[in-house]
Amino acid sequence: MADLYARLRKEDAAVLLVDHQAGLMSLVRDFHPDEFKNNVLALADLSKYFGLPTILTTSFETGPNGPLFPELIEMFPDAPYIARPGQINAWDNEDFVKAVKATGKKQLIIAGIVTDVCVAFPALSAIKEGFEVFAVVDASGTFNPTVREAAHQRMAAAGVQLMNWFSVACELHRDWRNDIEGLAGVFSRHIPDYRNLITSYSAKK
Amino acid sequence: MADLYARLRKEDAAVLLVDHQAGLMSLVRDFHPDEFKNNVLALADLSKYFGLPTILTTSFETGPNGPLFPELIEMFPDAPYIARPGQINAWDNEDFVKAVKATGKKQLIIAGIVTDVCVAFPALSAIKEGFEVFAVVDASGTFNPTVREAAHQRMAAAGVQLMNWFSVACELHRDWRNDIEGLAGVFSRHIPDYRNLITSYSAKK
Amino acid sequence: MADLYARLRKEDAAVLLVDHQAGLMSLVRDFHPDEFKNNVLALADLSKYFGLPTILTTSFETGPNGPLFPELIEMFPDAPYIARPGQINAWDNEDFVKAVKATGKKQLIIAGIVTDVCVAFPALSAIKEGFEVFAVVDASGTFNPTVREAAHQRMAAAGVQLMNWFSVACELHRDWRNDIEGLAGVFSRHIPDYRNLITSYSAKK
Amino acid sequence: MADLYARLRKEDAAVLLVDHQAGLMSLVRDFHPDEFKNNVLALADLSKYFGLPTILTTSFETGPNGPLFPELIEMFPDAPYIARPGQINAWDNEDFVKAVKATGKKQLIIAGIVTDVCVAFPALSAIKEGFEVFAVVDASGTFNPTVREAAHQRMAAAGVQLMNWFSVACELHRDWRNDIEGLAGVFSRHIPDYRNLITSYSAKK
Amino acid sequence: MADLYARLRKEDAAVLLVDHQAGLMSLVRDFHPDEFKNNVLALADLSKYFGLPTILTTSFETGPNGPLFPELIEMFPDAPYIARPGQINAWDNEDFVKAVKATGKKQLIIAGIVTDVCVAFPALSAIKEGFEVFAVVDASGTFNPTVREAAHQRMAAAGVQLMNWFSVACELHRDWRNDIEGLAGVFSRHIPDYRNLITSYSAKK
Amino acid sequence: MADLYARLRKEDAAVLLVDHQAGLMSLVRDFHPDEFKNNVLALADLSKYFGLPTILTTSFETGPNGPLFPELIEMFPDAPYIARPGQINAWDNEDFVKAVKATGKKQLIIAGIVTDVCVAFPALSAIKEGFEVFAVVDASGTFNPTVREAAHQRMAAAGVQLMNWFSVACELHRDWRNDIEGLAGVFSRHIPDYRNLITSYSAKK
Amino acid sequence: MADLYARLRKEDAAVLLVDHQAGLMSLVRDFHPDEFKNNVLALADLSKYFGLPTILTTSFETGPNGPLFPELIEMFPDAPYIARPGQINAWDNEDFVKAVKATGKKQLIIAGIVTDVCVAFPALSAIKEGFEVFAVVDASGTFNPTVREAAHQRMAAAGVQLMNWFSVACELHRDWRNDIEGLAGVFSRHIPDYRNLITSYSAKK
Amino acid sequence: MADLYARLRKEDAAVLLVDHQAGLMSLVRDFHPDEFKNNVLALADLSKYFGLPTILTTSFETGPNGPLFPELIEMFPDAPYIARPGQINAWDNEDFVKAVKATGKKQLIIAGIVTDVCVAFPALSAIKEGFEVFAVVDASGTFNPTVREAAHQRMAAAGVQLMNWFSVACELHRDWRNDIEGLAGVFSRHIPDYRNLITSYSAKK
Repeated sequence: MADLYARLRKEDAAVLLVDHQAGLMSLVRDFHPDEFKNNVLALADLSKYFGLPTILTTSFETGPNGPLFPELIEMFPDAPYIARPGQINAWDNEDFVKAVKATGKKQLIIAGIVTDVCVAFPALSAIKEGFEVFAVVDASGTFNPTVREAAHQRMAAAGVQLMNWFSVACELHRDWRNDIEGLAGVFSRHIPDYRNLITSYSAKK
Repeated sequence: MADLYARLRKEDAAVLLVDHQAGLMSLVRDFHPDEFKNNVLALADLSKYFGLPTILTTSFETGPNGPLFPELIEMFPDAPYIARPGQINAWDNEDFVKAVKATGKKQLIIAGIVTDVCVAFPALSAIKEGFEVFAVVDASGTFNPTVREAAHQRMAAAGVQLMNWFSVACELHRDWRNDIEGLAGVFSRHIPDYRNLITSYSAKK
Repeated sequence: MADLYARLRKEDAAVLLVDHQAGLMSLVRDFHPDEFKNNVLALADLSKYFGLPTILTTSFETGPNGPLFPELIEMFPDAPYIARPGQINAWDNEDFVKAVKATGKKQLIIAGIVTDVCVAFPALSAIKEGFEVFAVVDASGTFNPTVREAAHQRMAAAGVQLMNWFSVACELHRDWRNDIEGLAGVFSRHIPDYRNLITSYSAKK
Repeated sequence: MADLYARLRKEDAAVLLVDHQAGLMSLVRDFHPDEFKNNVLALADLSKYFGLPTILTTSFETGPNGPLFPELIEMFPDAPYIARPGQINAWDNEDFVKAVKATGKKQLIIAGIVTDVCVAFPALSAIKEGFEVFAVVDASGTFNPTVREAAHQRMAAAGVQLMNWFSVACELHRDWRNDIEGLAGVFSRHIPDYRNLITSYSAKK
Repeated sequence: MADLYARLRKEDAAVLLVDHQAGLMSLVRDFHPDEFKNNVLALADLSKYFGLPTILTTSFETGPNGPLFPELIEMFPDAPYIARPGQINAWDNEDFVKAVKATGKKQLIIAGIVTDVCVAFPALSAIKEGFEVFAVVDASGTFNPTVREAAHQRMAAAGVQLMNWFSVACELHRDWRNDIEGLAGVFSRHIPDYRNLITSYSAKK
Repeated sequence: MADLYARLRKEDAAVLLVDHQAGLMSLVRDFHPDEFKNNVLALADLSKYFGLPTILTTSFETGPNGPLFPELIEMFPDAPYIARPGQINAWDNEDFVKAVKATGKKQLIIAGIVTDVCVAFPALSAIKEGFEVFAVVDASGTFNPTVREAAHQRMAAAGVQLMNWFSVACELHRDWRNDIEGLAGVFSRHIPDYRNLITSYSAKK
Repeated sequence: MADLYARLRKEDAAVLLVDHQAGLMSLVRDFHPDEFKNNVLALADLSKYFGLPTILTTSFETGPNGPLFPELIEMFPDAPYIARPGQINAWDNEDFVKAVKATGKKQLIIAGIVTDVCVAFPALSAIKEGFEVFAVVDASGTFNPTVREAAHQRMAAAGVQLMNWFSVACELHRDWRNDIEGLAGVFSRHIPDYRNLITSYSAKK
Repeated sequence: MADLYARLRKEDAAVLLVDHQAGLMSLVRDFHPDEFKNNVLALADLSKYFGLPTILTTSFETGPNGPLFPELIEMFPDAPYIARPGQINAWDNEDFVKAVKATGKKQLIIAGIVTDVCVAFPALSAIKEGFEVFAVVDASGTFNPTVREAAHQRMAAAGVQLMNWFSVACELHRDWRNDIEGLAGVFSRHIPDYRNLITSYSAKK
């Protein structure tokens, strides 16, 4: 049972951002839009900060699902970008799986729209192939909380670990002394309450 | 653990609609009525779209529980229809089990009213007989969220997979290239947000 | 004070549907999408049933706001349709006001997206010109309940009466004996609980 | 402004129970069914306790709306009972208004299903004729809280006072010394928390 | 895994009602009081209906915790009644365990106040001794939903099955033909929506 | 209209604490108990801090309603304390009204249990006699939010101003320079977030 | 009554941002922090976009309340900035009132932390001096929704108009043709759903 | 499976309070501040009452995270206090682990801010080293309920038992006869409803 604490290690992890597309976003109703947008960008920000290999993929981006969030394209201009021609489960796309395996990482951090499909399907497929999988619950959105919870239970039952972007960042960082400014910057940009603490603190010095 | 990702395959799956009756519907208070009606019809619609064997059953339909939703009867005029004379667990009814086995399918997709009885009981019975069982949480309703969650935990503990109608459709379809128009039609009829995306998209072409 | 009960009369009322557009719909987060779509169509349905003059208007429909819901266009093919070139308050558009005045009605039933702008602005303008105004709160949507309530209070303070589509229908109809089949049809199409009552009732006869 | 505190007086008040019918009850989704049933019976109980003239009325009780709650019929076997042949607003029915006026009371306590129609319409009509009107918000139910609040605002704007069954009972009773046992009995039967206080208190004596 | 569906059998089951006391009730804030009182009485009612051995126990009933609900005493005048002198976990009281074992049943249906202590502790203890344990989540109450869910997860992790009073009744009854009147009576007394169905249905015959 | 901003002045105000009794507290379900207890004590604390005349009153304190919160008795040992023998509306008790009038104040700050009775009744009575009345909504509790809102609307319609304990304190204090330590002490004792700000701030100096 | 629709005119309006300070922000619990931060910055953004005179003020910014949000200082480097030495109601500070009057505007748009004090007090004071006052409900925050609603009712009773930042922008702009790019930019920066519409729309052109 | 009921024993348990710091507290938004503060102090109170070894630790307390709650320092002046220089997971700090092991206890009761990091990380690490771990869910706080639930599921999957402070106290105490006054004191100080029961009970004696 102890083995279930597969701890994230920054040298072993890659990030998969699945179908964060402008059109699909209108299906997400289990988070406030301001909160959700912030969470997705926070995950992208921490991925960049830790220098994790990051893979972008979209489903039918020239149709109603719409293009990927422009911010993600700007942040990861050189990332593998797989515009899937039709496969719903990203793991059914050979290029995507190749890109994942090319990172050489065994820990996969996944987020996407919608949780029950674009996150759950590749997460379950990756578990089956022996990866350690971490679903980021607050950077993934879906129709309503009932659907979200069912997807969480389905993933958890198969061994997927459920985390949030903040705990992912903390587990990767391990020790503030590795770099205070950098991590505080990520938090300040994406947690208004943390930013306020820093603002008040700095004013006192 | 990897075996827990028993993936739905359209050639192996059947759909069981259990006790979606006009009277029982008034017991359902964990979903808004518009949303619930839509979810049930969406599941029926996708079952038809994929050509899955579908079985209808009712409990005491000549009493206060009332008749099956007329839409379901219209959609599946030739489906096995078991009006159970008294068995609460549909699996206790021989005709029902025979009808299930006659489909030759090993994956059962179940929804019904109420979740904790009409879904949970046959789901648990079917698991016991070796079927792979998928409960559709948003096409099943009950008294309140506390009861629903207890039923979900009871089913999950026995190996039932918790899904929603949208993820069922996506897992069965696998690849948009199999048929874009058809699946988009199902989504457009049952997801107003998706319909709006298509409306806006089409207006631009 | 008694004068505040300005009762709807079907010979004196017109319906204004303001900016129910496919794109704007994604801004509506104070109602479940299934529920909201149903409420808008229910208002349109009752308007048609009572033969009320109905006016459609849109804001920038060739841009991101998107086209009007196709169902509304189909239901009211001959209705005045004012695609406003830029005015945010429909009442600032001369053609719209002309169309309203051309109906010769003094009671205006308004719904739209979003409540705080597309409903509140013309409602307040119409009150100022002496119309009796009825805002349909459940066929109008906006960003969140706090914004909705503020808009309701602003309108109520100016004398706008807050109603819902069901009470509008009932106040217009006055007496079931005027036509049972027709009104029951409207309710059956848009209130699943009512439809179930009718289904169970009919099964018994 | 001070005149707005029109205080309930037991010698001046009558109770109108409008359309608490078995079928219509399935439309009520802004209260938990256990709570709502209890609130309606509590209002009936206090009406009986204070000996207030009570009038029962139904809408189309032989159709899908269903019969009046049997408990109400049992509690008020001799009350005026107006089964309206079609009028939606009870005040449009001459027999109902006659029955109201026959009580000789000027303060009307109204509750019913649904709040926005069966309560609001007669409440507004009665205000217009000079009655003091008190709507009992927790013995009246409707589709959802948004509709309820709109109905409350519409009634309040016209001078209807919004109360709950407990405050109605307290305002009528004025002084516990008038009868401790009786009022405590009403509370004990309908407020589990109060009953527990009495149970614990009695065990100590 | 299939063994997890330990199905309730009326010949093998006993009911344990733990600390449903008038004072402790004021700690229960995860259910509306009307709903909770009804659920507890419904469980008692079904226990009586099926003739299950029922055991009552209280904690410090002469102190602030207060006496057992009087209704339970009236319903089970001859049941074993263990007023525990101090043990918090009822299973730590020898008389209680003796009473349980004296029933000769292997399936224990438990409810109580509060869920995380009075239900969870004896449930976990009984599991450890080899009983099949069924916690009735809606006849058990506690401080808030977060505490309730933690208690549910702790119990589920140890193999306790989470049910609600309605599904307990249905699983015990198996087949309506065993006795329609009796079970319908239980439902009619404790599910207002079900009672309304019966009322409407009976009116038609 | 401008006259509606009757601003609290510490030389003109008195505080009435109505029926904050240990038993009645179990009826309060529109606030979390920790929050409500804190709010009541905060109002008492500020009343003491500003040296406002404070009047305590109870209803039937020797019966199930139970004694006043002991903290209030300790804080105001010399305050007028009217244990009403039966009057439900405190204003119906001559001693209470005499005590109010003896303060010579024209602004009355009222809180109590339950909002719809113990607050609303004397608030409305006092308005009628020409007092300026301020109901403290968060130090007053009742059965549920629906009842609370109805009581708020009834009071607001009659001219009662709705405030919370924090805004009462701020409006009375006017200027931090009158005494920083004192007011900060009140806030620190009753607003954990404010206390944290002070803790962090002090640590930096 | 018609006069209540005092419509915002960009040539007559000024914006007052009251106490949006890093420390006070931790008191705000009626909005999600991401949402609230976005709303405040959106109001600032629109104020700048329309070139409205904007006044900044803080309460005790060198103490625990903390400094103003740095973004506001950056956005309005030349705005009147009144760091109040102690007055809680900004209107009690002569410099603040002078700054307001120096704008020569008669319409005041106010937001701040906390709603019940920093917004309500100056709003009520300004109403008393004859200004037209518009409170921006979603750029103002406080302890909880109950406090917020009480503050809203107190302000509305005195004639303050309740709006949100989006409706303020729309009412000021009047017509999209005045400048499409500019207003769309404000919306795109602060309404993720609107940004998605634009992203999808632009991708199609 | 029965082994999962690892029951708390007061001779085997230690308490770890992780990062309950004034600044971090502003990140906690899944509990009301009054409730959360009370829960943390209640856990501290019971730890002291049972004489459990208690370890305090903080993260970066001289920075924006702020100092430990002063109450905790006062309550445990002699407890091991590890101000971690940078390690995010307290278990990565050697002094902390030494302090834990120095207690000689095998059962660890953990609470902290935030649940998903400061509680989950050391809880999972301790499980891995063979400790029995009990997370106190209501004395631990985080950003929102979705994050909390994910953290709970991650911990539960690894064998951490989820409890609340009240059930911890009850499981440690075992029998009221061990000391009535003491435990009742803890409950009276931290459960207002319990305090009210005692107040009413004492008044009767």
